[in-house]
Amino acid sequence: MHSPTLSGSTQLDAYRPLFLPTLLIGDSRLGGISSTISAYESLSLRGYIVDALLLFREDYYQNWEYLTSYFVEKGVPVVAIPPPPARLPSNEEDMFNLESYYKGISESKSSELSEVIAQLTKRHKSRLDELDSMPSRTHTQIWWPFVQHSFMHPNPGSIAVIDSAHKDHFSIYGDHHAPGSDDAGLLLRSQFDGSASWWTQTLGHSNPTLTLAAARAAGRYGHVLFPQSTHLPALSLAETLLAGPGKGWASRVFYSDNGSTGMEVALKMALRAFTRGHPAEGKPGGDRAKKLGVLGLKGSYHGDTIGAMNACDAGDGVYTCEWHDSKGFWFDPPSLVIRDGRISIDLPQALRELASRGGVSEEGFVWTGAKGSLNAAYDVGGRLGTALAQVYREFIEHSLDNIKIEIAALVLEPLVMGAGGMVFVDPLFQRVLIDVVRSRSPLVKPSTQGRWSGIPVIFDEVFVGTYRMGHQTTSTVLGVHPDIAVYAKMLSGGLVPLAATLAKEEIFEAFVGGTKDQALLHGHSYTAYPIACEVANETLKQIRMLAQSEGWKEAASKWTGGVSPNEAAKVWSFWDPEFVDELSRLESVKEVMTLGCVLAIKIDDGGRGNNLQTSIRSLREAHAFLRFKDTDPPLHRRSWVPLGTQILTRPAPTLLVFTSVLWETSGISSPASTPNVKSLLKSRRGSSRF
Amino acid sequence: MHSPTLSGSTQLDAYRPLFLPTLLIGDSRLGGISSTISAYESLSLRGYIVDALLLFREDYYQNWEYLTSYFVEKGVPVVAIPPPPARLPSNEEDMFNLESYYKGISESKSSELSEVIAQLTKRHKSRLDELDSMPSRTHTQIWWPFVQHSFMHPNPGSIAVIDSAHKDHFSIYGDHHAPGSDDAGLLLRSQFDGSASWWTQTLGHSNPTLTLAAARAAGRYGHVLFPQSTHLPALSLAETLLAGPGKGWASRVFYSDNGSTGMEVALKMALRAFTRGHPAEGKPGGDRAKKLGVLGLKGSYHGDTIGAMNACDAGDGVYTCEWHDSKGFWFDPPSLVIRDGRISIDLPQALRELASRGGVSEEGFVWTGAKGSLNAAYDVGGRLGTALAQVYREFIEHSLDNIKIEIAALVLEPLVMGAGGMVFVDPLFQRVLIDVVRSRSPLVKPSTQGRWSGIPVIFDEVFVGTYRMGHQTTSTVLGVHPDIAVYAKMLSGGLVPLAATLAKEEIFEAFVGGTKDQALLHGHSYTAYPIACEVANETLKQIRMLAQSEGWKEAASKWTGGVSPNEAAKVWSFWDPEFVDELSRLESVKEVMTLGCVLAIKIDDGGRGNNLQTSIRSLREAHAFLRFKDTDPPLHRRSWVPLGTQILTRPAPTLLVFTSVLWETSGISSPASTPNVKSLLKSRRGSSRF
Repeated sequence: MHSPTLSGSTQLDAYRPLFLPTLLIGDSRLGGISSTISAYESLSLRGYIVDALLLFREDYYQNWEYLTSYFVEKGVPVVAIPPPPARLPSNEEDMFNLESYYKGISESKSSELSEVIAQLTKRHKSRLDELDSMPSRTHTQIWWPFVQHSFMHPNPGSIAVIDSAHKDHFSIYGDHHAPGSDDAGLLLRSQFDGSASWWTQTLGHSNPTLTLAAARAAGRYGHVLFPQSTHLPALSLAETLLAGPGKGWASRVFYSDNGSTGMEVALKMALRAFTRGHPAEGKPGGDRAKKLGVLGLKGSYHGDTIGAMNACDAGDGVYTCEWHDSKGFWFDPPSLVIRDGRISIDLPQALRELASRGGVSEEGFVWTGAKGSLNAAYDVGGRLGTALAQVYREFIEHSLDNIKIEIAALVLEPLVMGAGGMVFVDPLFQRVLIDVVRSRSPLVKPSTQGRWSGIPVIFDEVFVGTYRMGHQTTSTVLGVHPDIAVYAKMLSGGLVPLAATLAKEEIFEAFVGGTKDQALLHGHSYTAYPIACEVANETLKQIRMLAQSEGWKEAASKWTGGVSPNEAAKVWSFWDPEFVDELSRLESVKEVMTLGCVLAIKIDDGGRGNNLQTSIRSLREAHAFLRFKDTDPPLHRRSWVPLGTQILTRPAPTLLVFTSVLWETSGISSPASTPNVKSLLKSRRGSSRF
Repeated sequence: MHSPTLSGSTQLDAYRPLFLPTLLIGDSRLGGISSTISAYESLSLRGYIVDALLLFREDYYQNWEYLTSYFVEKGVPVVAIPPPPARLPSNEEDMFNLESYYKGISESKSSELSEVIAQLTKRHKSRLDELDSMPSRTHTQIWWPFVQHSFMHPNPGSIAVIDSAHKDHFSIYGDHHAPGSDDAGLLLRSQFDGSASWWTQTLGHSNPTLTLAAARAAGRYGHVLFPQSTHLPALSLAETLLAGPGKGWASRVFYSDNGSTGMEVALKMALRAFTRGHPAEGKPGGDRAKKLGVLGLKGSYHGDTIGAMNACDAGDGVYTCEWHDSKGFWFDPPSLVIRDGRISIDLPQALRELASRGGVSEEGFVWTGAKGSLNAAYDVGGRLGTALAQVYREFIEHSLDNIKIEIAALVLEPLVMGAGGMVFVDPLFQRVLIDVVRSRSPLVKPSTQGRWSGIPVIFDEVFVGTYRMGHQTTSTVLGVHPDIAVYAKMLSGGLVPLAATLAKEEIFEAFVGGTKDQALLHGHSYTAYPIACEVANETLKQIRMLAQSEGWKEAASKWTGGVSPNEAAKVWSFWDPEFVDELSRLESVKEVMTLGCVLAIKIDDGGRGNNLQTSIRSLREAHAFLRFKDTDPPLHRRSWVPLGTQILTRPAPTLLVFTSVLWETSGISSPASTPNVKSLLKSRRGSSRF
């Protein structure tokens, strides 16, 4: 079970990618009940399906008897076979004796071994039947998030049946005849998890260390209620977060269940802090408090609960619903892109005109084969004195002067707006925006006795935080701290949901008072549930080790070889610079951009979507083993982009986004030893093939 | 490790309540690496903290060497001691030989065994230091849900340090000198989980079957993204829910992360279904769509995200915040209470006047020592023809005629409004309300080609569903189905968060169309994560077994002995009727009410809160071992009510609510064999005492 293999890990972990049918051989000796159950639990912890338990029908300890009833509820059939005969003194007699023993237990159709074999066949068949029926059962009973069901079909291949997952691959059933696949005929196919399962995966699927962390907390606490109490997993995590992304500014951690609820909490904190500092705005629940607005960027996304939605621009009206009531003002931001090997800034119309009137050049940065210029573009501190910064400043000041609504918070996804279209916002614009907002509203007015009185700055780091962008917090790159920040997704290792909202002590103090109604009256039943906190603690521990690893340093050095104005703030990507450069020069590719684990590719389809197939084919020529599943309209659904890859056709051109797990633990090799990212786009084999 | 005990369970489970320090003795023989790691994993699955691993320094297999490095990352020190000498032929020599072996490994201060003992002492001390420091660290770094922090203190006893939890008890550290405690001096004290950890617990804390289910799914999948794909845990759970609470009406399951997000989804479903059926109301995002309202009851609660809050009455303005914008009309509902052994209906002023003008008596039901009358009160079908039903009908019709806003959904917590004050609403009122709403808006208008056109009815069964009230759905009691229903809390066994929103096919069809923006554009990263789905599947399986058990039947029969108009719809409580009767007659108790796992006790303190201590003392006289932690103002915080017990002082009188887990699995005994609930209020011992 757990005997070491040559790779250093134990057999259970080493063989896990194969996800083989499992027959557990139990122990009929003294102590065998214990070792058999423990073995079963070790198998379960790694997701193995135990199809049957086989052991000797030993009559003194009768382990089989206890184990048979023990495993009834677990659905594992126990088969006991007669033990082998005692050894005879004569070799010849012994051989004869054994031979007849083997015949006895195997040849008869009613023998126990036949029963086992029949059992295995039956379970295998029913497993296949189950897998076969899953698409149609899903098609009629499941209501998916974000899916237009009229585009879906119950036939195999339309709905991905995920039989298991390991590291950065799904094991998918039922797509036996996928065109272009070189493993046609296999029942299970390994498929790259194109979006790291909506950006949640950190150390890869089914990581045994994280599973054990979850099990440990489940076994010690289950869930325990949190108000007025404490437990070690939640407290340790809070301390790690305050010493990590919260270092230098945050003093409090509030837990909730996902990025959207974490943002609702952040917004409640910010709005209340603002109104406590500005009592004239009226009390909570009052009409004026209902109309307070936020500042943000167009294209931002903070989750799908109504409060989080209200902090986003309604945009083109696609991502909206009946109660959605956007409250705020959103800037159209400049963004960074790589085209034909050059990094440049795309300025929106208004800014371009302003820059042009002011005689400011477009300040493109030439990106010369992976060296330096990415870090020049992200050298926020160094760029603060440029003419473009001044243009940003004037533009923002002017806009703020003309906003009619009361602004109570600034809400940003720092560096990258993920769900809104993977927009790599010019970090200089975000930095100037924060600086201007803070200069207009002093953080703490002396007259209010230390009470908060400014406009709080919220960083939504749900997508970009916890090392997705290569940094534990993007504050390091922007060079400023928020007043409130939210973490989720990768935080809990891609296993279970958890969000943490961090806040400055002054924000917290806005809720401290003599009555309960001044408190933050928000909470979810499973707040700070020990499993998620323990998994997050383990995840952050593993990432800290990775961040110190040679592999990471080497990958980073490929991007930071040149300019490194501020060592701690340097940016880098897990994707190889040569590959990114090559991609950006492809005719079918309009632009690319990358940071950390994310690679975004915009495909030039002339805005019509017609050339999409052609473009995708070009990518395939670049050895990209892609499977196209997520598009709208359905026309393209059978093409070649990994499941989960984010594909946006609105706004045109089409955008493909790949997100990987943190590679070094994702198995095959470190980014340093796989400099050719093409081989990563090419699906890695290993699962379900042997 | 897993050897069977006399109780039938294995040692690891049987000893778990003691939560002892653990020294794992490893196996140095062939195969010993495997059995040692498996043993460690079985311990971890039950939350045991392994303080050290001890094994023989056997030189051929050298298991200690591999295990030492294997356990480094897990923080478990491995100590290898010399193996015992080979047996000598002479008994005397052998004895002498062994004696000198034992001396050698134990007496020297530098021996390995001394190292182990020093290690254990050191770890024990650092564990106590950690526990000692937790209150002050928590006090300065954690921001709790729903807590006014100015009421809290960092001293031990103010913040409950939960060291572990088992079945329906916490193991609390640091409250060594609690007055009245008969275990003063113990470092850890067992304390009843008064609210079943905000009503999440189903089968008790740290249930090994649920832990294993969680581990199984983590090991097989981790999390895998859900749109356009499927996996067995999510699909099986959907089928179980559709065949369970969704039977007869629902056809679709949408997953999210908690009750609040589940309700946001339900509201989005209902509002869209309404607007698709009433195109004149304008499209989503439009001004008219923003103002659509819901019908509901005063005192309702649906969660703390803004959308869920907007579906609730702002009430007295305590539970509100800046963006809260209540949209709807809420009825002041009649409720059922037990006073002095009688069940009666408390009518709000308006209804009382209407009933009195119509010559309708107050229709109290006399509750005669546990027999029958609870079921008479809940015989909704039978009561539909009464004069009171007619009063309800006229009142509702009249109110609806005068509502000025556009109503797009009816949103109810059936039978009991939990967080809003544990109000046991007269089920007849809810039934009549549903009937009236449906009669005024036919569900499907023929003219709209099968499209939904009515006002959808949403059941928020987050608190009352999944057997908390003794039924898998309260629909059975009300005698009508909803169009949309939400489940959470107990659904996932009190281990991890999960919500499921069930919907009718007609509701689903309102989102089916030719463009993506017609779809339900709501989703969370961890939607349908396999761990929660697998835990929910196991939970529902265990509850089904419980519901068939003799213990449940016997407990139910105590309440249903008399009238049983509709066998399937009969109601009952886990709390013993004699005890409830006795409670309701106490001078200090104003009224009580109970259903399923919930017991609510209203204490008559004359609205001033002054007599609260006296009242609590009366309860203590009734052997209630209560610890008072949750009150506002802080005055009462050191009294005697279990942690987590819901205590509401607003509106007066004070309300105490106890919620138990489903008892039969909660350990000690079935409700049938502990008919005296007093002994349940009295904290059950077992943890941390031996």
